[in-house]
Amino acid sequence: MSKEMMMSDNTALVPLKIVASGVALPADCVLSADLDKRFNKRSGYVEKRAGIRRRYHAAPSDSQAVLAAEALHHALAQQNIDPVSVDALICASAIPVQALPCSAAHILACSSLMPGIACFDVNASCVSYLSALQIAAGLLATNQYQRIAIVSADLASRGIDWAHEESSLIFGDGAACTIVEKGDGHSGILSFRLETYPEGLDLCEIRAGGTRCNPRTGMKEDDFLFHMKGKPLFRLASSLIEGFMDRVLSQAGIALSQIDTVVPHQASHLSLEHMRKRLKITDKQLVDIYATRGNQVAASIPSALHEAIITGRFYGKSGVLLVGTAAGLALSAMVLVP
Amino acid sequence: MSKEMMMSDNTALVPLKIVASGVALPADCVLSADLDKRFNKRSGYVEKRAGIRRRYHAAPSDSQAVLAAEALHHALAQQNIDPVSVDALICASAIPVQALPCSAAHILACSSLMPGIACFDVNASCVSYLSALQIAAGLLATNQYQRIAIVSADLASRGIDWAHEESSLIFGDGAACTIVEKGDGHSGILSFRLETYPEGLDLCEIRAGGTRCNPRTGMKEDDFLFHMKGKPLFRLASSLIEGFMDRVLSQAGIALSQIDTVVPHQASHLSLEHMRKRLKITDKQLVDIYATRGNQVAASIPSALHEAIITGRFYGKSGVLLVGTAAGLALSAMVLVP
Repeated sequence: MSKEMMMSDNTALVPLKIVASGVALPADCVLSADLDKRFNKRSGYVEKRAGIRRRYHAAPSDSQAVLAAEALHHALAQQNIDPVSVDALICASAIPVQALPCSAAHILACSSLMPGIACFDVNASCVSYLSALQIAAGLLATNQYQRIAIVSADLASRGIDWAHEESSLIFGDGAACTIVEKGDGHSGILSFRLETYPEGLDLCEIRAGGTRCNPRTGMKEDDFLFHMKGKPLFRLASSLIEGFMDRVLSQAGIALSQIDTVVPHQASHLSLEHMRKRLKITDKQLVDIYATRGNQVAASIPSALHEAIITGRFYGKSGVLLVGTAAGLALSAMVLVP
Repeated sequence: MSKEMMMSDNTALVPLKIVASGVALPADCVLSADLDKRFNKRSGYVEKRAGIRRRYHAAPSDSQAVLAAEALHHALAQQNIDPVSVDALICASAIPVQALPCSAAHILACSSLMPGIACFDVNASCVSYLSALQIAAGLLATNQYQRIAIVSADLASRGIDWAHEESSLIFGDGAACTIVEKGDGHSGILSFRLETYPEGLDLCEIRAGGTRCNPRTGMKEDDFLFHMKGKPLFRLASSLIEGFMDRVLSQAGIALSQIDTVVPHQASHLSLEHMRKRLKITDKQLVDIYATRGNQVAASIPSALHEAIITGRFYGKSGVLLVGTAAGLALSAMVLVP
């Protein structure tokens, strides 16, 4: 589809321009072959079971904020952007560095950005990045900031329940950053939806970390681990995804076949396969980095977006769809004109 | 000052209308006289030392999300707003319910709002509410939502270090909600600033709750408590506050004397006293609910704003200043035309 057609059909484009992107990974690469040995499985078991060859896990001494800052510096360097020109930093991770203060302040502390800029976190679980993009667009459109860095960094390895085979094999750590501006009005958000269905609240969670499970209320080590009820989660998400996609696409006034590039949350091998089949997304459309990264929680979507950018599947295209499901249960999608 | 003058001087008003507000407190009222007994102090010691008569502390079985929903329902009821009309819920607390999923999803689960609406958290520590207001204004101005509920709820009592006298006496739990719309363009944000200085990162913190201190990296019970280095925190904040206020007021094009009502973060007796003297804020301008609530963390500013609203110090005024300092170290302020 031509950009002109899309623009004339829809006057409600919220201006937004992605001007740079970057990623970072921890040093320690964990091969699925390593996990075969660790769990006394036959060679090839983990790769077949989880659809993943390798993922990266931070060492216990590694810092989420430092990893986030690496992705930020990568993005700045990619487009030779002066750190002084960034006037706001949004951290869009699922899990924070600590309860207080916010993670963005921690990232600022180890970054080249200027002390004194605005720092805050946006959290919509694994789809935090999409809400951060939407929020940034609103802030830029109203001239409240000029150039915003959005960083998502998650260290899922800190919460892996190694006794739970299904979820333990799929998570990888990582960070990704995009830098956004208002642009000239030709690029932006054509449609966005975030829908949260709290009937799925306990299907995917880490119970500790806040006021619910702590020394005052009682807690156990298990509360610090990621818990997922795979089957009911899949059932609930499946019952909602088609109606949800209809709403986000009709709001954009386009069909999925008209989307050039689909950047999904890299939740799991099966979720990507399901999306491919159920929504009829072609291999050409789909950005799939899962086999070499795993599920990087909130860092997945911006990492896959960076991949789309560096492989020529973003700029110059007329429509790009970012989409994912997340703990909550949340469904989120955005149609971007790059 | 007349509203017309303010409007004509500044064409960059970001439209925003606060259409309802509400608050909630846990059942258990803790008198300073009770704490005198608890800590074997002479009668009147705590009230004199901390400048506070009572505060409210949640029972261990109380839920932060339920308290937040109570404030939300109070706000809806105050203006007879149909819950179905709210299309986004922002949780703007400092400490979350748990690490995953986001607190807004937990609040939605126990609220009368519609399942399926957008839910996300915004976190800028104790000044989260101001960033949530700024973000809401951007989202409403770009027609991404029509009516947004912003809820701040914090249970500071879950993290009080009872061995640290200074901080243990001042915290109270609570929640506050405001419901906002775009309005007709006559009300809105005249200026806003959020400045974060990470040299103050460790002066005010709770180290547990995220990837930094957990069972994988090592943690101790003390990491779950609120820690404050009072003197260096005060020194850093004092060195920054005047320049900061100059920037936010000159951006608004007005003098502090022209502000009708000042709604500060209710950080402590001394911080309010300092603000009064240093910035020359009159008793008539200042909204001070500290003596009967204590420091309610991120719920303080919206609770004080609700107080301003119900005591006739908000609507009909021409300029209202919201202001606070927070962990980070963050300074944030907003000049609102009500």
